Amino acid sequence: MSTDTPPLKHLSAQGVTELIDDAFPQIHASGRVMEIEHIGPDTARVRMRLNDRNTRHGGTISGPAMFTLADFSIYAALIGRLGAPAIPAVTSNLNITFLMRPPPRDVIAETRLVRVGRRLAYAEVALYSDGGSEMIAHATGTYALAKPAEKQ
Amino acid sequence: MSTDTPPLKHLSAQGVTELIDDAFPQIHASGRVMEIEHIGPDTARVRMRLNDRNTRHGGTISGPAMFTLADFSIYAALIGRLGAPAIPAVTSNLNITFLMRPPPRDVIAETRLVRVGRRLAYAEVALYSDGGSEMIAHATGTYALAKPAEKQ
Amino acid sequence: MSTDTPPLKHLSAQGVTELIDDAFPQIHASGRVMEIEHIGPDTARVRMRLNDRNTRHGGTISGPAMFTLADFSIYAALIGRLGAPAIPAVTSNLNITFLMRPPPRDVIAETRLVRVGRRLAYAEVALYSDGGSEMIAHATGTYALAKPAEKQ
Amino acid sequence: MSTDTPPLKHLSAQGVTELIDDAFPQIHASGRVMEIEHIGPDTARVRMRLNDRNTRHGGTISGPAMFTLADFSIYAALIGRLGAPAIPAVTSNLNITFLMRPPPRDVIAETRLVRVGRRLAYAEVALYSDGGSEMIAHATGTYALAKPAEKQ
Repeated sequence: MSTDTPPLKHLSAQGVTELIDDAFPQIHASGRVMEIEHIGPDTARVRMRLNDRNTRHGGTISGPAMFTLADFSIYAALIGRLGAPAIPAVTSNLNITFLMRPPPRDVIAETRLVRVGRRLAYAEVALYSDGGSEMIAHATGTYALAKPAEKQ
Repeated sequence: MSTDTPPLKHLSAQGVTELIDDAFPQIHASGRVMEIEHIGPDTARVRMRLNDRNTRHGGTISGPAMFTLADFSIYAALIGRLGAPAIPAVTSNLNITFLMRPPPRDVIAETRLVRVGRRLAYAEVALYSDGGSEMIAHATGTYALAKPAEKQ
Repeated sequence: MSTDTPPLKHLSAQGVTELIDDAFPQIHASGRVMEIEHIGPDTARVRMRLNDRNTRHGGTISGPAMFTLADFSIYAALIGRLGAPAIPAVTSNLNITFLMRPPPRDVIAETRLVRVGRRLAYAEVALYSDGGSEMIAHATGTYALAKPAEKQ
Repeated sequence: MSTDTPPLKHLSAQGVTELIDDAFPQIHASGRVMEIEHIGPDTARVRMRLNDRNTRHGGTISGPAMFTLADFSIYAALIGRLGAPAIPAVTSNLNITFLMRPPPRDVIAETRLVRVGRRLAYAEVALYSDGGSEMIAHATGTYALAKPAEKQ
């Protein structure tokens, strides 16, 4: 990219967390499982803390928990980029491939927004075990953004 | 298909439920949310009961809850078809497309096993709101089956 | 569906073929490979004739050829349903899973439109070898429809 | 990754091109459209030259042509990494999302092997217009590798 392009403005991890907490106060009813660690111009890093509900018998992380993390991390990246107007965004497709059986540890999602259009956004997510270097799952997702007119 | 083909044997909904309850007793810790209503030779119908955890502010069903249902219903269909040897099967890919915002009602998953090979199985799932005729989400999934040798 | 619902109007296979031939006269430059055999209210059946370009060394059908067929059959189904306004529709996602190695024969695509919204349509496609009963590949696709205002 | 890890050995672009030309001499029957420009330890860059067959009326690149490029570039990366034993590898899933309408220019595929297991490999592909900085399409693919025993 040209170095003359001004850097994209984006919210901080703290700013995104506050917007989501305001909009969905109930999601932390059973404790804060998802922690937004970093937001960049088109990236998000989110940690899913290990708990009784996202582990499975035998000591691994459940697939639906990894889906939930991937989905949430794309949402966080979108709010980082677009701010409050992204709050009504909804997932339109999520495709997740499980690459290896993860150990029972926190899972880290590294999300990158590939394209943010007026109506659709597309992102990819790499999931890692905390401290591990091999990807445990990979997802791509498409989100439908609300039309500007609908927000008024 | 030829009418001379003997019908495939398969477990009943009750049989599949018992096998899963035995293998994963903890999944009903907070109440039985998933109910296997019917198992056919290569099909499963599973109901996800509405509760506080799968609904979202504003009265709709969360995307991760629908993913969980789709994933579980494929697993149930595999156990119906293969019996206990399918218990160690794991999801290798799940791709879900959300087609419309569902009302806050039970969700029904209709799963069809498209292909069951020695190592991989592929299925598709249609999700409906209870009593509704329009599909609210559609998923396809690939499962890795355990090698026969591993089961001995 | 209620039996009181009037049947959806749709074009015939001949009508869809003529619209596509008019819009894209060049696609048959090297012979007519894709033949639209049937159009229903939300279905299409398309045959891909075996030729030198879609076969692979060793006597099977190439993956890209099956992708091309799946993509084309969804397009044909959309034109069957929506008529000429669907001509500018473009593929936004196509996900194809190859289930078995097909023999060197014509391939039949059976497409079903799952949802046709104002801006997006979603369909699934089952591919069979001509005369075979086992699915050789399965695809799902999302198409972006042109906005009505753009058509004037 | 640790800096103590020895670099993975891999073939050169020239080596991969020769192996593919030997195995599939017919693919260049109508001219060399795909050119492998670079192979890294787990990457490939492949150029698809613009020609009459991959362009569409109105001056854009056809979706099936972009699928073909994505599929081929994963195959090239696998051969770069595994050598001749990857020749019998077959695509088991390919999911492609089209992000913008590309101009009528060469298309560049940047492929990264995410995971190469004994039986399955998973990769992602970013497609760009030659000289452009915005991704025009993104794909993920799963390949089935031949069992070692089958190669003897």
